[in-house]
Amino acid sequence: MSDLLWPGDHRAGALLSDGAYLDALVAVENAWLAVLVDSAVAPTAATADLTGLVGAEDVAALAEGAEQDGNPVSGLVALLRDRAGDEPARWLHRGLTSQDVVDTALLLCLRDALDVVAARLVTQVQALLGLIEKHRDAPILAHTLTQPALPTTAGRKFSVWLQSILDAADALEAVVPLPVQVGGAAGTLAAGTELSGSAAAAVSLADALADRLGLARAHPWHTSRAAVTRIGDALVTCTDAWGHVANDISVGARAEIGEFAEGSGGSSSTMPHKNNPVLTVLLRRAALAAPGLGATLHAASAASLDERTDGGWHAEWATLRTLARRTVVAADQAADLLANLRFDTARAAANLEAAHGILAEQQTMAGLTGRPPTASYLGATDLLVETAVERGRNYLKGSS
Amino acid sequence: MSDLLWPGDHRAGALLSDGAYLDALVAVENAWLAVLVDSAVAPTAATADLTGLVGAEDVAALAEGAEQDGNPVSGLVALLRDRAGDEPARWLHRGLTSQDVVDTALLLCLRDALDVVAARLVTQVQALLGLIEKHRDAPILAHTLTQPALPTTAGRKFSVWLQSILDAADALEAVVPLPVQVGGAAGTLAAGTELSGSAAAAVSLADALADRLGLARAHPWHTSRAAVTRIGDALVTCTDAWGHVANDISVGARAEIGEFAEGSGGSSSTMPHKNNPVLTVLLRRAALAAPGLGATLHAASAASLDERTDGGWHAEWATLRTLARRTVVAADQAADLLANLRFDTARAAANLEAAHGILAEQQTMAGLTGRPPTASYLGATDLLVETAVERGRNYLKGSS
Amino acid sequence: MSDLLWPGDHRAGALLSDGAYLDALVAVENAWLAVLVDSAVAPTAATADLTGLVGAEDVAALAEGAEQDGNPVSGLVALLRDRAGDEPARWLHRGLTSQDVVDTALLLCLRDALDVVAARLVTQVQALLGLIEKHRDAPILAHTLTQPALPTTAGRKFSVWLQSILDAADALEAVVPLPVQVGGAAGTLAAGTELSGSAAAAVSLADALADRLGLARAHPWHTSRAAVTRIGDALVTCTDAWGHVANDISVGARAEIGEFAEGSGGSSSTMPHKNNPVLTVLLRRAALAAPGLGATLHAASAASLDERTDGGWHAEWATLRTLARRTVVAADQAADLLANLRFDTARAAANLEAAHGILAEQQTMAGLTGRPPTASYLGATDLLVETAVERGRNYLKGSS
Amino acid sequence: MSDLLWPGDHRAGALLSDGAYLDALVAVENAWLAVLVDSAVAPTAATADLTGLVGAEDVAALAEGAEQDGNPVSGLVALLRDRAGDEPARWLHRGLTSQDVVDTALLLCLRDALDVVAARLVTQVQALLGLIEKHRDAPILAHTLTQPALPTTAGRKFSVWLQSILDAADALEAVVPLPVQVGGAAGTLAAGTELSGSAAAAVSLADALADRLGLARAHPWHTSRAAVTRIGDALVTCTDAWGHVANDISVGARAEIGEFAEGSGGSSSTMPHKNNPVLTVLLRRAALAAPGLGATLHAASAASLDERTDGGWHAEWATLRTLARRTVVAADQAADLLANLRFDTARAAANLEAAHGILAEQQTMAGLTGRPPTASYLGATDLLVETAVERGRNYLKGSS
Repeated sequence: MSDLLWPGDHRAGALLSDGAYLDALVAVENAWLAVLVDSAVAPTAATADLTGLVGAEDVAALAEGAEQDGNPVSGLVALLRDRAGDEPARWLHRGLTSQDVVDTALLLCLRDALDVVAARLVTQVQALLGLIEKHRDAPILAHTLTQPALPTTAGRKFSVWLQSILDAADALEAVVPLPVQVGGAAGTLAAGTELSGSAAAAVSLADALADRLGLARAHPWHTSRAAVTRIGDALVTCTDAWGHVANDISVGARAEIGEFAEGSGGSSSTMPHKNNPVLTVLLRRAALAAPGLGATLHAASAASLDERTDGGWHAEWATLRTLARRTVVAADQAADLLANLRFDTARAAANLEAAHGILAEQQTMAGLTGRPPTASYLGATDLLVETAVERGRNYLKGSS
Repeated sequence: MSDLLWPGDHRAGALLSDGAYLDALVAVENAWLAVLVDSAVAPTAATADLTGLVGAEDVAALAEGAEQDGNPVSGLVALLRDRAGDEPARWLHRGLTSQDVVDTALLLCLRDALDVVAARLVTQVQALLGLIEKHRDAPILAHTLTQPALPTTAGRKFSVWLQSILDAADALEAVVPLPVQVGGAAGTLAAGTELSGSAAAAVSLADALADRLGLARAHPWHTSRAAVTRIGDALVTCTDAWGHVANDISVGARAEIGEFAEGSGGSSSTMPHKNNPVLTVLLRRAALAAPGLGATLHAASAASLDERTDGGWHAEWATLRTLARRTVVAADQAADLLANLRFDTARAAANLEAAHGILAEQQTMAGLTGRPPTASYLGATDLLVETAVERGRNYLKGSS
Repeated sequence: MSDLLWPGDHRAGALLSDGAYLDALVAVENAWLAVLVDSAVAPTAATADLTGLVGAEDVAALAEGAEQDGNPVSGLVALLRDRAGDEPARWLHRGLTSQDVVDTALLLCLRDALDVVAARLVTQVQALLGLIEKHRDAPILAHTLTQPALPTTAGRKFSVWLQSILDAADALEAVVPLPVQVGGAAGTLAAGTELSGSAAAAVSLADALADRLGLARAHPWHTSRAAVTRIGDALVTCTDAWGHVANDISVGARAEIGEFAEGSGGSSSTMPHKNNPVLTVLLRRAALAAPGLGATLHAASAASLDERTDGGWHAEWATLRTLARRTVVAADQAADLLANLRFDTARAAANLEAAHGILAEQQTMAGLTGRPPTASYLGATDLLVETAVERGRNYLKGSS
Repeated sequence: MSDLLWPGDHRAGALLSDGAYLDALVAVENAWLAVLVDSAVAPTAATADLTGLVGAEDVAALAEGAEQDGNPVSGLVALLRDRAGDEPARWLHRGLTSQDVVDTALLLCLRDALDVVAARLVTQVQALLGLIEKHRDAPILAHTLTQPALPTTAGRKFSVWLQSILDAADALEAVVPLPVQVGGAAGTLAAGTELSGSAAAAVSLADALADRLGLARAHPWHTSRAAVTRIGDALVTCTDAWGHVANDISVGARAEIGEFAEGSGGSSSTMPHKNNPVLTVLLRRAALAAPGLGATLHAASAASLDERTDGGWHAEWATLRTLARRTVVAADQAADLLANLRFDTARAAANLEAAHGILAEQQTMAGLTGRPPTASYLGATDLLVETAVERGRNYLKGSS
């Protein structure tokens, strides 16, 4: 996939594409059929591998047909029944409802996206640890409310970015494993109970589906959508973190400041001299657009109604796709940006040198303590960097 | 185009698709080249028709390449220069900057989308006038805060929907004609002035481009983005209106109430008896998701900076596509919904009949006036319907 | 009023405060009673001036009581009936419903706020015209995507800000005059019709109320809320414009750039050397927070239902207050900021001087035209400034 | 406090009011001074209790003065220095920066609000467990996409609400304990290090402040704002859950359906017969307005810049107040609503009885299994209820 209106979109490959989603829908139906056979609810003759029975050539028709029922599952099930053998056709999808298949398939797709984001976070943390190692004590001017504040170090600046990124990584880790959805037509496992002969057996079918798909066993959450908003919030927390980093680079990359430069910036259609901080710009873009998508997921959750929501549920799907793909793109861009970031120690030192009055606070402190001011006024900079580095290293250990 | 995650998306056809956007980018370059030749800035030998020089097969490469510069124009211009003759290649794009081409092309795409929305609004108004004609005096129960309030008429209910829709139509009309964007690299028409020999001539080039593309002549608005937020706000005002209509139908279509039914509802994958109000549900979906997109356009506008914005600008594009396509889809669905809506006069009358205490207010009034209560307690219902119908008819006249 | 958590809030005075809202509620009831008497619906003996019958000392009880019915009108009417004479008490509020009073009163309050914003926009335009006059041709470096682009002038930069502000002013003008709300309990003017004896007379009562309050006559819009979202969108368009201006100043005020400074910046609790661009920062704050409020108004509108909405309506009130007060505050801060803005021509010229390669585009143009490059490469800068200045002057004429 | 425009606001008492915030600011300064003395950084003569040195009478001046510096801390410190003895005056606030005091004070205020929300969640869970106990097996009709779907039980319906509420409770628990903020002027603990003589000692001061205030020890997070967005997301997750419950009640309270009624609903200013589901309506209001506030916190976080953010930081404060107070109000309203909710078993049974075709799915299953359909088609309803009840009970145990 690619997208002329969201440059960089190709970095997300096929994640959450119609094709990937269709594959996931089939994977859910396939796993469920296997569960039915395994548990002896369906006869052995119902054994079948549904994989490949539908494909790219079916997407357009399924998508158009999806409007008939509000989702593509009825259409897909009809196709599968048509193309599978008689006995698999009789049994497939029995006990599930459309929402079970849609929700579980979407979470499978999201899991793939979250995995990529997590991997890129690792790369980012590695890049930042590298930057810290290289420029740990390089002097740089701290700013508050845009104005010169105090001396600090490049290591400290990078460690603050690291902190934002590790906070995002924590948020992401808190949402996995993602839950399976099996509730049946009204969240009562009615059909599954009828098929399996008991409520406990119906719950076992649901658990077996979770196990088979590598998802968490879960109570049906058809109209309790915190599982969805949690994912959205974590993704937005990621773009927040990269937005923060991009803001600092965006300012620092100005010619008048010159502390940062992208490893390889973009050119202009009319101004060949320019070295635009394109990844930075595209990360800021992602950070600007994500909060509205996260809010839409909450609005959808807050609209939950009955035993299947009349619109709120439907608003989640494309919102999740957009948010997840963009976060994957931004994750990859941020990894590139940090891996290739150039820091100009000379300009940073010169900017610090040129700053006026930034040691006034220190004079006040010396007046209080009666001790002479320290040479650097760098405070606990090094210790704070060390703490952040340690957190980063622990994260890498936990992620390897 | 279609979209498994946004059922109904195919209704928007190719509007704002990568293909349509690429065509529009070429149309802008093409018109600009013609303007340069027409105005004798470029020699006659530069005359060329760029249409068709790039096509669907170039989209993927252009999209991936767009990340290099943050937008696809450099890549497109390179392709066009490669494929046009020498003299056209020398002249094409001269005087423009990427932003000019992107902004103008996007507005061309949006114009097409707005035209479709406007046409569907006409259909909706016609459908509502038809419903009013058919059921004008049919009694129905008015509710406030979900509770029985007073008697009203179906005509009045439909006239309120009509009002919401006409308000949206007004909002939409207020944003056209859309403005051209020609500012050059920094919003100073520097290159255009250099090419044409004078500032006035440069402005004339910009005006000629507007005329040729059927857009409004405009001062460069590269970092003054009210032109964009205005469009977004108008589109959201449309989905608000359909959301309102869908809410009323969603409630009225409940079996326990039974006043409304979709002409042809959707079925369930497991419950064949169901007649789901699918269009209603999908309209509610659109209304839930639109405000976040409109807000993103404002956030992007508020991030305007320098002579080209570092991220805010880039956040607009895909947001506009998503919002515009969804509004087109919803416009078409709302037109279908209203054209085929079934109103059950008997159930409505029965629900009104069953309501308790709804004439208490009338008794109070009679106590005050000393006059006996009117038979219906319908107040100015008919007059208000008439006013709304007249407004609707005037709109249809103005739109034909 | 003041607000420790929204510094600058006191600039909005009592606008949309509980006190102002209560006054407006009483003003509506008072005007309606006068209308009833004037139109001979109520007897002359019902004449009364309700102003002052309730006051600041009643606010807390009314606010707490408002939860009982979801709005304060029942409580207020009870108080007024208690404190007015018998005959006024018998007649006041008759024919209105709570929503009529709440909506109309809120629009009265909003009108006051919009008036202040409009007045501050005039001041801002004046300030910008002054800045343009003073620095029209001062050289400054244009940036795109944060990087040096081309030479431009301070006049041109100010004229772009002017454009954003005039676009906001246009948006604001498009929403006035604000509409009255009179629909009665279910938007049918039932009680008014019963009281006045005819539908036409009931509509006349509504029109008379509009006239008396200086609002626009209007069809009831109880569940067609474009009147509200239009106001919200216009207010957000204002904060967008100031956000744009503040972003440019925020960057230009950096010590490393030094082109802009606030006339009187804020100090730091620990760093006495700092001259923080506080108004700039607070304007950015307002611009960041406004889009979410505008989106909430759309979400509320899209939730419209029945003949009075079950929550969407209630979500509008405080959202409008917050958005309107903050816009007033920002309007005033932006007026101050622009009136006292310092522009450092020397630093701007030096930054331009230091820029590399920014005339490369011009060389390309010269190569095409065969004419020598112009001295300045300022293009149509002056002409564009002139056009903007003229638009500004026309706006001032129209506003005086 | 009360608020005419947000009925129910008084339920939040003084939480996050200007007064409470001022008290918290003083509490932070007070605790810090004690830490300085305890650690022998400041002399024993600096011991003082700052509590009560400023009060309600100072709020207006501090609020107005806050605009000078962008926050009220400089003004507050000046007042405290004025009113404390000489030696305390010399030492108080030394080592802190405004942001440390603002952030820590706001989190103290938020902790109080979160405590109330948590307590109300306990009440809600108790109420739901009571409802389940009372109506566990009462038959009711499940709906999907507004249409009759299958039989279920009131116990199952309540258990789904319970699940939404417990998910929200989990989200809330995940954000505590809240972190202290001590970073000094630029997040380097420079002044603290100078005062205490070493970086390690400076970190100890920060830790001691956390301990003294009952907050979590924390790395400075001045421009890493996940701590803030996490709180916001959790609060919005709460209003989502109550929105879900309110939606179901809003529909079920319709006269035509009649399954639910508020224990004591609100009346109408003109229609005495009405029993409006006011708490339900006000909860829907809160759920509509919260997502935009949560999104604003993310937008603010994504705007993080330098060592103190130029506007994003300032946008958090009032947003947090509004979101937190409204969540407290809604928490209390939801507790009342659930504690007094009336469920009409007869109407629910009748509505189920009247539903057509809802056992069609069961027939299909029976056809597959060859076994006769079960009597109820309630599936695993009881088992699922049991699981939810157990989760609820465990939550209560953990919260007591």
